[in-house]
Amino acid sequence: MPSRKPIRVALLGCGTVGTEVVRLLTDQAADLTARTGAPLELAGIAVRKPNKHREVPADLLTTDAEALVASDVDVVVEVIGGIEPSRTLLLGALRAGKSVVTANKALLAEHSAELFEAADGSGADLYFEAAVAGAIPLLRPLRESLAGDRITRVMGIVNGTTNFILSGMDSTGASYAETLEEATRLGYAEADPTADVDGFDAASKAAILASLAFHTRVTAADVHREGIAAVSAADIAAARGLGRTVKLLAICERVTGEDGQESVAVRVHPAMIPRSHPLAGVSAAFNAVFVEADAAGEMMFYGQGAGGAPTASAVVGDLVAVARNLVHSGRGPRESAYAALPVRPMGQTPTRYHISLDVADRAGVLSQVAAVFAEHDVSIAAVRQEGRVDDASLVIVTHAATDAALRSTVDKIGGLPVVREVVSVMRVEGEES
Amino acid sequence: MPSRKPIRVALLGCGTVGTEVVRLLTDQAADLTARTGAPLELAGIAVRKPNKHREVPADLLTTDAEALVASDVDVVVEVIGGIEPSRTLLLGALRAGKSVVTANKALLAEHSAELFEAADGSGADLYFEAAVAGAIPLLRPLRESLAGDRITRVMGIVNGTTNFILSGMDSTGASYAETLEEATRLGYAEADPTADVDGFDAASKAAILASLAFHTRVTAADVHREGIAAVSAADIAAARGLGRTVKLLAICERVTGEDGQESVAVRVHPAMIPRSHPLAGVSAAFNAVFVEADAAGEMMFYGQGAGGAPTASAVVGDLVAVARNLVHSGRGPRESAYAALPVRPMGQTPTRYHISLDVADRAGVLSQVAAVFAEHDVSIAAVRQEGRVDDASLVIVTHAATDAALRSTVDKIGGLPVVREVVSVMRVEGEES
Repeated sequence: MPSRKPIRVALLGCGTVGTEVVRLLTDQAADLTARTGAPLELAGIAVRKPNKHREVPADLLTTDAEALVASDVDVVVEVIGGIEPSRTLLLGALRAGKSVVTANKALLAEHSAELFEAADGSGADLYFEAAVAGAIPLLRPLRESLAGDRITRVMGIVNGTTNFILSGMDSTGASYAETLEEATRLGYAEADPTADVDGFDAASKAAILASLAFHTRVTAADVHREGIAAVSAADIAAARGLGRTVKLLAICERVTGEDGQESVAVRVHPAMIPRSHPLAGVSAAFNAVFVEADAAGEMMFYGQGAGGAPTASAVVGDLVAVARNLVHSGRGPRESAYAALPVRPMGQTPTRYHISLDVADRAGVLSQVAAVFAEHDVSIAAVRQEGRVDDASLVIVTHAATDAALRSTVDKIGGLPVVREVVSVMRVEGEES
Repeated sequence: MPSRKPIRVALLGCGTVGTEVVRLLTDQAADLTARTGAPLELAGIAVRKPNKHREVPADLLTTDAEALVASDVDVVVEVIGGIEPSRTLLLGALRAGKSVVTANKALLAEHSAELFEAADGSGADLYFEAAVAGAIPLLRPLRESLAGDRITRVMGIVNGTTNFILSGMDSTGASYAETLEEATRLGYAEADPTADVDGFDAASKAAILASLAFHTRVTAADVHREGIAAVSAADIAAARGLGRTVKLLAICERVTGEDGQESVAVRVHPAMIPRSHPLAGVSAAFNAVFVEADAAGEMMFYGQGAGGAPTASAVVGDLVAVARNLVHSGRGPRESAYAALPVRPMGQTPTRYHISLDVADRAGVLSQVAAVFAEHDVSIAAVRQEGRVDDASLVIVTHAATDAALRSTVDKIGGLPVVREVVSVMRVEGEES
């Protein structure tokens, strides 16, 4: 192979992921050169605090990210996270024809249209495999491998922190607050856990997955989002009693309305799934995503969803792809948003509920409760009633109905004099409806 | 988007997969055009028997595959299978600068070097996602997503027929012959099941996976291959007794010798795996493949491994990629065989054995058997001895040793006077060694 001019790489950010990117570029230099067709040369590393101890060459560090991007680099790799200054830096790079590799889910979920537009204007590449599900090759399969198929559903566990907490609550019976404290102590949750526990992180990832799966622009604001802070030990116990467990799921669906109009429904919320479901066994920091397509059927992708080395693997994989495109004058896939399907509001999205009630133990209770379901056109799939000394527990699992109808049903039932307490309300996923 | 000249596609073969390819190209024409940037136009379909009933446009059928390839087509899609005439037709297409999409595992496993050379000579693309694990996006992740990482191991179930038979033997306790008969009756096995049950199909796929994972040319002849015909009901029962099940596995490993020299070991054989292992639950026609890489860690890919529609999904996904490259003057990944690692013979490959013996029930038997293991430097991980009226059963699981040492050990033990019968010998995978 003739020796080629090196591909010059600017690295923006040097935390856990950035450090691992530098390590892979160094340790695997000969392999990466052979795979790319040209050496990958690190031109500089932009950081905020240059004096912090880092396992990277000190002479590459700079605090001037803007100047680094504007210098004679071919590719910009961004692992800073957050919207600014990443957005401005990457738009500048793309407009100048420099390809971009980013792990920034928040940025992609908010501003992908703008970023793709800048990339298309100059012919630069935009790759972001590391933004969702860490090391698991998931975006490339959606963008490329399944480009000949019609994807109908993407559902998975895409946030390790909430998965660690819910798994912990399930195995110990402890409360949410106790388990969050434990997760923080062990480093599974950040000091401010909001982005994870309130579902913002998962919602960003759901927006990215839905955009790619349905060829439609979906932003984080389009995603119905519920976190796990309201999941109680009672919810977990109720799930366990039914042979189910609770997971925070990101769900992207193609929904056809009664008028035949296709739309996409994208949501993040805790849900009960059967313990026999493959997602039920996914523990701690692992991620797993199911994809369903018309011709391909059901597929699952599983692996480490976060962490320095796994995320860096995805970043450097993208970097090799971008560099190969530069060597061979190729071009990666562009934005594909031609379908432009409308986003379906959560109220009109079909879901299923599990409802656990404390009721007076006397004749006629079930018929009063059932009447409320019938009023709202919600069909009941299963009922279990257990008497105790003074009262009874009534557990109901519904068939699919719109989320609005289910919510109204629960509100009305909560107001019935025979209902002492609504113990647990949780959506149900992963089984035949 | 400006209207582009159609991409003209020649389809070679029109069996189950070919028919589904035509259906996808027809049903999804508008979507595929939007995703590709140009219409995909079927120029002709080469078949041997044009009068057979098929659900495809009759005016596209031709018996002259050579003329179809030589006509003004841009891409050749091959779903005939087998070596010839596919090899000659595809070499002709690639040399003429026409990109190729193929589902032909046997051809890729034997002649990929020649095919890639032809592709590189003319700048054409060669894609073959459908050749391994049907609809599961697996080759693109290996070729592209993990290009920045160091893959150490690929292990999986890649043949649906043998998986159906072994699952059946496990759940019914029936013999291999009975279960094969059932599989044939249900259409899971072909009239001549040799390619599947003797492991040829899995060996071709293992060769392809190893080539991509280790950047080394591996052909089917380099793969150690054992089929499932010798798996007995006693083997299955022995596995069950140990909380294990038997699967036909394709295993591709990077092995570092005592001299520090890296090599690749590629093998297909039945093996016991723990029932708790994710591969144990993969049933019937599903495929699942584990990939381990230094930075990314462990990943799993799961889905339908065969069948018309799933395979067609992979073929059309590749077709969109190839067509996009034509529209945007891009280029797909080339052969990457720079590492050129030596292939390690099976005898020198580390494996673990499970051995079940019928022995005389008297003192000193275990010490005689254990002495043979010690002689061959094979370390024992676990022993279970159960006495019966006249004799005893002795079950031994070893630590990792070279396959040659393990085979010699078993041979010698079989000749000990205190050993009445070697009931079952099976390799063990999927647990800590």
